[in-house]
Amino acid sequence: MRPTTAAGPHGYSLPLSPSGTASMLTPPPWHFSGNVVMVDYRVDPAEAGRFLPPELTPGPDPGAAAAVFAEWQWCSASGAELPDPGRTQFTEFLVLLACTHRDRPMARCCYAWVDSAVPLVRGWVQGMPKQFGEIHQTRPAAVGRAGPRLAGGGRFHGTVSVHGRRVAEAAVTLEGRVDEPPALHAVPLVHSRVFPDWVAGVSHPAQLVTSEVTDVEFSDIWAGRADLRFLGADDDFGLLAPVEVGRGYVFSYAETLCGGTLL
Amino acid sequence: MRPTTAAGPHGYSLPLSPSGTASMLTPPPWHFSGNVVMVDYRVDPAEAGRFLPPELTPGPDPGAAAAVFAEWQWCSASGAELPDPGRTQFTEFLVLLACTHRDRPMARCCYAWVDSAVPLVRGWVQGMPKQFGEIHQTRPAAVGRAGPRLAGGGRFHGTVSVHGRRVAEAAVTLEGRVDEPPALHAVPLVHSRVFPDWVAGVSHPAQLVTSEVTDVEFSDIWAGRADLRFLGADDDFGLLAPVEVGRGYVFSYAETLCGGTLL
Amino acid sequence: MRPTTAAGPHGYSLPLSPSGTASMLTPPPWHFSGNVVMVDYRVDPAEAGRFLPPELTPGPDPGAAAAVFAEWQWCSASGAELPDPGRTQFTEFLVLLACTHRDRPMARCCYAWVDSAVPLVRGWVQGMPKQFGEIHQTRPAAVGRAGPRLAGGGRFHGTVSVHGRRVAEAAVTLEGRVDEPPALHAVPLVHSRVFPDWVAGVSHPAQLVTSEVTDVEFSDIWAGRADLRFLGADDDFGLLAPVEVGRGYVFSYAETLCGGTLL
Amino acid sequence: MRPTTAAGPHGYSLPLSPSGTASMLTPPPWHFSGNVVMVDYRVDPAEAGRFLPPELTPGPDPGAAAAVFAEWQWCSASGAELPDPGRTQFTEFLVLLACTHRDRPMARCCYAWVDSAVPLVRGWVQGMPKQFGEIHQTRPAAVGRAGPRLAGGGRFHGTVSVHGRRVAEAAVTLEGRVDEPPALHAVPLVHSRVFPDWVAGVSHPAQLVTSEVTDVEFSDIWAGRADLRFLGADDDFGLLAPVEVGRGYVFSYAETLCGGTLL
Repeated sequence: MRPTTAAGPHGYSLPLSPSGTASMLTPPPWHFSGNVVMVDYRVDPAEAGRFLPPELTPGPDPGAAAAVFAEWQWCSASGAELPDPGRTQFTEFLVLLACTHRDRPMARCCYAWVDSAVPLVRGWVQGMPKQFGEIHQTRPAAVGRAGPRLAGGGRFHGTVSVHGRRVAEAAVTLEGRVDEPPALHAVPLVHSRVFPDWVAGVSHPAQLVTSEVTDVEFSDIWAGRADLRFLGADDDFGLLAPVEVGRGYVFSYAETLCGGTLL
Repeated sequence: MRPTTAAGPHGYSLPLSPSGTASMLTPPPWHFSGNVVMVDYRVDPAEAGRFLPPELTPGPDPGAAAAVFAEWQWCSASGAELPDPGRTQFTEFLVLLACTHRDRPMARCCYAWVDSAVPLVRGWVQGMPKQFGEIHQTRPAAVGRAGPRLAGGGRFHGTVSVHGRRVAEAAVTLEGRVDEPPALHAVPLVHSRVFPDWVAGVSHPAQLVTSEVTDVEFSDIWAGRADLRFLGADDDFGLLAPVEVGRGYVFSYAETLCGGTLL
Repeated sequence: MRPTTAAGPHGYSLPLSPSGTASMLTPPPWHFSGNVVMVDYRVDPAEAGRFLPPELTPGPDPGAAAAVFAEWQWCSASGAELPDPGRTQFTEFLVLLACTHRDRPMARCCYAWVDSAVPLVRGWVQGMPKQFGEIHQTRPAAVGRAGPRLAGGGRFHGTVSVHGRRVAEAAVTLEGRVDEPPALHAVPLVHSRVFPDWVAGVSHPAQLVTSEVTDVEFSDIWAGRADLRFLGADDDFGLLAPVEVGRGYVFSYAETLCGGTLL
Repeated sequence: MRPTTAAGPHGYSLPLSPSGTASMLTPPPWHFSGNVVMVDYRVDPAEAGRFLPPELTPGPDPGAAAAVFAEWQWCSASGAELPDPGRTQFTEFLVLLACTHRDRPMARCCYAWVDSAVPLVRGWVQGMPKQFGEIHQTRPAAVGRAGPRLAGGGRFHGTVSVHGRRVAEAAVTLEGRVDEPPALHAVPLVHSRVFPDWVAGVSHPAQLVTSEVTDVEFSDIWAGRADLRFLGADDDFGLLAPVEVGRGYVFSYAETLCGGTLL
C-alpha cells in the first residue's frame, strides 16, 4: 500500500514521513455518524443530462434530484480521532442527481461543500467534488424553545454559503415518520476520480467509480413538506436549481466507507 | 427602553438606527437549548477565594468547581433567527466556582469562552466574562460508530483552544443516570457587570448581579467518571486548575434568560 | 482604575482575576498601524439625518459619507501582543457620515464590522458599533502579477460579508497622489456609548463621546475613481446605500487611541 | 485537457460541469505575489535523510533546512479572482530540506500548511503536502507603532497552529540587506505526486516532479538574527526540529507556477 518505494518516507497520503504517521489522511475504512436534512426536488431533465458522463444515463426518472445537508462525526478504524472532537466533526451539503449505470440506479454527486479540510481531500480521493463552504443546519432540541423536536411540526433549516455569499437554503417541516429512506439516499453514489493535468505529456483518464459502503444504519426517518432555493455559485450551479420541490426528510444515518470499485 | 433620546436613532444595543432593527442584540428574553458535557472538580480553596469579590464567600464547600462544555442553539422571543441556523448555534466553555451570597448558594463564572460574537457581547451585558475560543465537544450518535450513545460506556470529550493554543480538555465516560443535576448547574450564576473606564473622570462601579432565568428544563442526566486538564491561558487561569477531579455529566438543558437582578 | 473593590479580583475589563492579567482588554492607549481602502460617497441626506442623535447635525454637506476598509495591526502600550501576530491583526469595515457637533466637523460611525473579538469588544467600550463580519481588501504587491502596485492604474478591492451574505463591495483605481487625506478620515469620530438595559429599574443613558487620538501618521495618499455597492444587511443598512460615488483612496495610517471625551 | 470524455461534463478539476466553469481549480499558470518571513536552520542530518525518497540525496550540506512563512495573493492567468480579495489571499508555512537530484540542488518540502482550500487542493495536484492550519506573520508597517519597519531593528514573527495547538513559532530581527536570496528559496522544489489508493487492485505509483516556475521576482532581501521553535504536530514532525538556528530573512517574492516536470 506504500505509494513510494519501500525504502523512503511513506504514508497513505501526503505528507510522506519516516513512520507514515504524518499522512493527512488515514487509510479507509472510515466510519461516519451523522444527522441529515434532505430535500427531494426536480431539475430540468435536459440540464441534468448535461451533468452526467456518457457512461451514465438519466434513468427512468430524469430530473430527480436531492439537496442534502449533513452534520457528521467521523473516525478511522482505530477511533484515534475521537478524543479531539473538532477533528471528527464536519458539515456537508450535496446536490445529487438520479442516474443509472447499465440499469443500476445510482446517484451522481454534482456538487459538494464541506467545512473541514480532511473530509475535503478525502472526497477528492473518492472522486467526490468537495469544495469549501459554510454549512449550517438546525439541530433537534431535546428540551426548550431554541430548536425543534424530532416530531410533527418540527421545522429544520439548512443554509450554505461560499466565499461569503449564500448559495442555497432549505427548510423541512416534519409531518410524520416514513418507512423508506429517500430514494437518492438509498442508492450507491457514482463519482469520477479526476486527476488534474500537471506534468506535461502525462494525463490520467478519469475513473468512474462507486463507493463501497458497509454498516449502513438509519434512525427513524421523518418526512414533511419542504422548501429549497438556490441562489447561485458558479455559472453552472443554477442549471441544477429546483423547478419543483418535493418532500423533505430528517434522519440520522451511519455508514462505513471502505473503498471504491471501478465501473 | 431606548438608550438614546427618543428623537434619534435607537435600539437595544449598538448599532443604533432609525427603526432600531440594526441593533446587534435583540432585547431579552433569549431562549437557549443545548447539550452539556460537565465535570465537577476541585481547585485550591485559597486560590478560589481570590477570584471572589468581597460580597461573595466560598461557602460550605470551598474549592468546589466545575468545567462546563455546551453546544447551544438560541433564539429571541420572536424566534426570528431560527431560519438561519448559523446565527443560532454557538459553543461555550465555562469555569464555575461554588460560592454564597448572604448564605444563598450560587456559582461564580470566572472564565467563559464562546465561538460566536453575538453571545459574546450578550455575555458582557450580563457580566459574564466571555472571550473568543474554539470549543468542541462530542455529540452523541444515534447510529454508527463515529460517536457514543447516550448510554453506559459512552465516552464524551471536550476541548478548548484560544489563539491557537489548547487551554483545557475533558472526558466523561457514562456509567448511569442520576436524579439530580450537578450542583453548580442547579444554582444561580452571579456576575459582575463591569464597564471599562473610557471617559476621563467618569467611572461606573461594577454591579453584582444574578441572572433571572425561567423555563428551565433538563433531559435525563447521565453521570460517570471524568478527566480534566488545564493547559494554560493567561497568567491567572492556572490558579483554577484541578487539584482533584470528580464526576462527569452529559445532559441536555434549556432555559430562558430574562434579565438581571442587583444583589 | 479598578472596576471592582480593591480587595477582590480586578482588571481593566472582564474577566476579573487576582492579578488582573486575565482581563480580555488591556487598558488604553492602544496603537494601530494599518492600510486603508476608502471611498467617499453620498447618501440621501434625509436618511443620513435619521442616523444622527439630536446633539449632532448634518452640517454644511449633508449626505457626505464614506466607506472604509482597513487591515490593522494593533498593540498595547507594552507591545506585548506583537510576538503573536494573529492577535494583533484584524480587518474592519466602517460606514461614516459627515456631521457637526456645535459647528465642529466630525464623523459618525453608523456601522462597523471587524473579524476579531478583542477589537469588537474594545469598540463597544468606545461606543463604536462593531459587529462581526468577514472583511477582505486587496494588498499592494511589491512584485509580481497577483496584486496591484501603489501606483497609477493600481486597482484595489474591498468586500464585506456577514452571516454568509455579501453586504458591501468597493473598488478603487489609483490615478495619482493627493496632498490631503479624505475629509471623513481627517475629523474626529463621535460615538454613543450605549449600555443595554439588563437590571430591572437600572438604566444608563447613552454617552455622546469623541475619541482622543494621538500620534496620527499618514503615508502617501493615493486617490482615484471608485465603485461602491451595498447589498443589504439589516433593514436599515440600505438607507445608507450610495446615491452617488465619489473618489477612492488608498493609504497607510496610524494612530494611538487614548480614551474618550464627553461631548 | 479534458479529464473526461469530450461528450460529458468537464473541467480542469472537480466539480465537472457542462461548461467546465464549476471546476474548483483553474488550470495553470497561477500567479503569486507574497511576503516571506524565512529562517534557515539545521536538522539532524540522519533524520533529514529519512524524509527523502531514494531518488534524492542529502547533498553537500546534509541537514540544511528552512522554515518559511508566507502571506500570498494569487490569481489565474485571467486575473478573474482579483475583485474578490478573500479568494486570492492565503497564508502558508513550509518546512524545506536541502537535497540533490543527480547533483542538481533542490529543496524538498516535507510539511506545508495553508489556511485556504483552493491552495490546499492545488498543492496536492503538484505533490505539495499541504494541510490546513492557522498561520500568521507580522506585516511591516509603513507608519505607526503597531508593526516593524522594513529596516534594521524591525522584528517579524511567525506562528502556526493546527487543530488548536501551536506547532511552530519563529522570529527574525532585521540587521541589513543582503544580495542573495536564502539558499533554499533559490532552488527548485521537488515533490512526490501521491495518489492515495482507493480502487481495489488499482495503484498509481508516486511521481517525482519539480515545479516549473517563471517570472520570479524578489524585492530587497533583509536578513538578521532568528529564533525558531517547533512544538509538535504528528509523531514525525519533531524529527525535523531545529538543532541549530541560522539567519532569518524578510522579503517579497513573486512567481508564476506553470506545471510540473517528471524527474
